[in-house]
Amino acid sequence: MAIIALLTDFGERDEYVGVVKGVILNINPQAKIIDLSHEIPPQDIVWASYLLYGCYKFFPKNTIFLSVVDPGVGTKRKIIVVKTKEYIFVSPDNGLLTKVLEREKPEKIIEVKNKKFFLKEISSTFHARDIIAPVVGYLSKGVNLGKFGLEVKKVKMISLPKPLIRNNQIIGEIIYVDRFGNLVTNIEKKILKRKKSHFCINIKGRKIYKINNSYAESKKGKLLAIWGSRDLLELAVNQGSASRELKIKKGERVHIEFSYSL
Amino acid sequence: MAIIALLTDFGERDEYVGVVKGVILNINPQAKIIDLSHEIPPQDIVWASYLLYGCYKFFPKNTIFLSVVDPGVGTKRKIIVVKTKEYIFVSPDNGLLTKVLEREKPEKIIEVKNKKFFLKEISSTFHARDIIAPVVGYLSKGVNLGKFGLEVKKVKMISLPKPLIRNNQIIGEIIYVDRFGNLVTNIEKKILKRKKSHFCINIKGRKIYKINNSYAESKKGKLLAIWGSRDLLELAVNQGSASRELKIKKGERVHIEFSYSL
Amino acid sequence: MAIIALLTDFGERDEYVGVVKGVILNINPQAKIIDLSHEIPPQDIVWASYLLYGCYKFFPKNTIFLSVVDPGVGTKRKIIVVKTKEYIFVSPDNGLLTKVLEREKPEKIIEVKNKKFFLKEISSTFHARDIIAPVVGYLSKGVNLGKFGLEVKKVKMISLPKPLIRNNQIIGEIIYVDRFGNLVTNIEKKILKRKKSHFCINIKGRKIYKINNSYAESKKGKLLAIWGSRDLLELAVNQGSASRELKIKKGERVHIEFSYSL
Repeated sequence: MAIIALLTDFGERDEYVGVVKGVILNINPQAKIIDLSHEIPPQDIVWASYLLYGCYKFFPKNTIFLSVVDPGVGTKRKIIVVKTKEYIFVSPDNGLLTKVLEREKPEKIIEVKNKKFFLKEISSTFHARDIIAPVVGYLSKGVNLGKFGLEVKKVKMISLPKPLIRNNQIIGEIIYVDRFGNLVTNIEKKILKRKKSHFCINIKGRKIYKINNSYAESKKGKLLAIWGSRDLLELAVNQGSASRELKIKKGERVHIEFSYSL
Repeated sequence: MAIIALLTDFGERDEYVGVVKGVILNINPQAKIIDLSHEIPPQDIVWASYLLYGCYKFFPKNTIFLSVVDPGVGTKRKIIVVKTKEYIFVSPDNGLLTKVLEREKPEKIIEVKNKKFFLKEISSTFHARDIIAPVVGYLSKGVNLGKFGLEVKKVKMISLPKPLIRNNQIIGEIIYVDRFGNLVTNIEKKILKRKKSHFCINIKGRKIYKINNSYAESKKGKLLAIWGSRDLLELAVNQGSASRELKIKKGERVHIEFSYSL
Repeated sequence: MAIIALLTDFGERDEYVGVVKGVILNINPQAKIIDLSHEIPPQDIVWASYLLYGCYKFFPKNTIFLSVVDPGVGTKRKIIVVKTKEYIFVSPDNGLLTKVLEREKPEKIIEVKNKKFFLKEISSTFHARDIIAPVVGYLSKGVNLGKFGLEVKKVKMISLPKPLIRNNQIIGEIIYVDRFGNLVTNIEKKILKRKKSHFCINIKGRKIYKINNSYAESKKGKLLAIWGSRDLLELAVNQGSASRELKIKKGERVHIEFSYSL
C-alpha cells in the first residue's frame, strides 16, 4: 500500500488540502494519505525544512512526501522529485528539502516537466493541486521516475540559521515556538555531546544551569531546558508556556556559556 | 473503495468530526474518509456552498459528500440525498448545495426518512452523527437510494451574493478571507472573459490595473489581483496578508471600472 | 481492518501527530487511523476524559484508542493497555480513562514494559512516538496483550468535578466551551430524569426555565438550555456564542433550583 505524507502551509480551514487529496485519490484510490502538518507559518520554508527533517525517518520505506511551501508558485521555479535510498520527496525546488538532504543522499533528482501527468487546466496559484498532487498520485501507482521529466544534478539548498560557536559561547536562536509554547532552538544535540561540563544557558536574562531529563523534573511553572523530540535544545516551562510567560518569540537569541574556551 | 468527503462547521478541536467518522466506520469499515474542511465559520451556509463547489469535481466519481452546516438541527428541515451524474451529496436541505447545483443536474433527490438507517437514539443537536453519518455509511456500502426515503422534486436554493453589473462597473464583494489573508471575491472568471481591455479594480481606495499571472509577478508586499484556484477574483499581497494589511474583512465592496459601458 | 483512534493535546500545527501515525504505519501499514481530537487544552486530563467518554461507543468493536495527555512524560508514571469487552485503550496511567471506566469494566490491564516493542531510542519528551505508538501498532496487528508487560490490578482514577445536590438545588459548573461557544456543564441527563417539574437554571444572573428540544426553538440570539450530544446539559445561544456573549468561561457555576427539596 502506497503511503503519502503531506506537509504544507495551506492551513486546515480552507479546502486546499482536501482538494489535493481528492486529486491524488482520483488517480490512485488505494493511496493512504497522512497529514504531517498544514500549519507551517505561511511561506516559512525554513521551518518546513526542519519539520520534515524531524519526521520523515519515522515513516515506512517508500513513503512519498509531498511538501509544499511555495511563495514562488506560478513562476519558473522548478518542481522536483528527489529519490533517496528509502523515500521519495516531491516539492518546489526552493530549499524546503535542505535539512533532509544534509543527512540523505539523493539517488535521483527529476525536474517535473511532463504535462501528461498534470491536470488539464493549470492555475497560476495552486500547483500543489494541478501539478504536484497528480504527479504524486502517479508516483504512488508505480510510474517510473524518469517519465516525469529529465534528471537534474542539484537541489536548491538554503542557508539555515546555524548556531555560532565563539570563544566559550554557543549562540543559537529560537527557530520555532510549538503548540505548547515550547521554544525550539537551532542547537542540535550533537554539538553539545562532548561538552558535558558546567555551562549556563541564558535567554532574555533568565539562566538555566542544567538540561532536564523530563519536564516534570522541574517544578510546575519553572523554566527548564530539555532535548526536544527533534534532537534540538528546547526551553520550556513545566505545565506552562515558555513563550507566553517569558514573552519570547521566534528569532530570540539563546547563549550557552561554558567555563572554558570551546 | 468508497470515498467519503466531509465538510462541516464543527471545527477540529471537539470530538464531533471524530464521532461522525466512528459512526461511518462502524457501518462500513472499508470506507475511505477525507476531510474537506471543518472550519466553515459557524452557520455560514453561503461559504460552505462556495467551498464545496470549488472542490467536488476534483474527487473520484462516486465520491459521497457529507456536508453539514446546520443551524436548523432538530427542527423539521429536511435531510436530503442528491445524486448527480457522478457524485452523491448528503446534506440538510438548507441551501448548502446551491452553488454545486448551479452546475450539476440532480438525477434523483431523496428526502431521508427511513429510521432503520439511523442510530437508535436521535439527539436534538447532532443529526450529523445520528442520522447523516449512518445514512452515508449505508450509501457507501451500496444501499439503494430509494431505501432511505421518498423522492422529492426540489432542493432548497438560496440566493448567493452575485456581483452587480451597472453602466461601466462590476460591483462585487469579499465573500471569504482565506488562511493566507487573500480576499476572495464573488466575481467569477467567466464574467470578465471578454472584457480584457483597460479596467481599474478599486477596493477601499486602493487601485489595481491588471490581473497577475502569479503572486510573485508583483513585488513582495504589493497588493495585487489574481484569479484564485476557485476561478474567483482574489486580492492578495505577495508574501503578505491582504486582509491584515488593508484591514479588510468579509463583506467589503470591490469595484471594477471599465473605460466603456458594459 | 484494524481501526485506531487518536486523542491528544498535541495540536495539529506541529508534526507530533503525523509522526505518531508514521510510527504506527511503519509497523502496520494496513491500520486505519482516525483523529478524535488533538486540541485538548494542554495537560487537561479532565476534559480528555470526558471527550473520550462521549466518543468511544460510536466506534466499531475492537477499535484501539490511543489517548495521550501526558504532563508526566519522562517520569515513572505507567503506560497502560486496558482491554474492555469491546475496546482497547492505551494511555499514560494518569486518570485519562476515569470517565470511560465509570461505565466500562476492564477485562485486563497491562503495564507496558517490554522494550522489544518500543522504538530503539526513547526520548524523554515524546513517549507517544517512542513507546505508545509502536505498542498500538503491534496491538493492531494482533500481538497478544500479555506480551507487552505484566498484568496490574488498578487503573488510576481521578476525581472529576461532580455536581452538588443540596436542598432544592443542583450546583454544577462549566467544564468545557466548545467551538460554537456552547457552554458544556457537568450535569448529566440521568440526574434530571425524574425531576421534570418546574425549575430555574441560573448562570451569572441569567435565568432559563426550560430545556429546549432544538437550538432553533429559541429565537436567534437567545440564551437557551439543551441536552448536548454528550448527554450533558449545555447552555447555548441560538446561532450565536454563549461564551462570547455572556463572557463565561470554564469553571463558571451553574445553579438549577427546584420548587421542592431534592
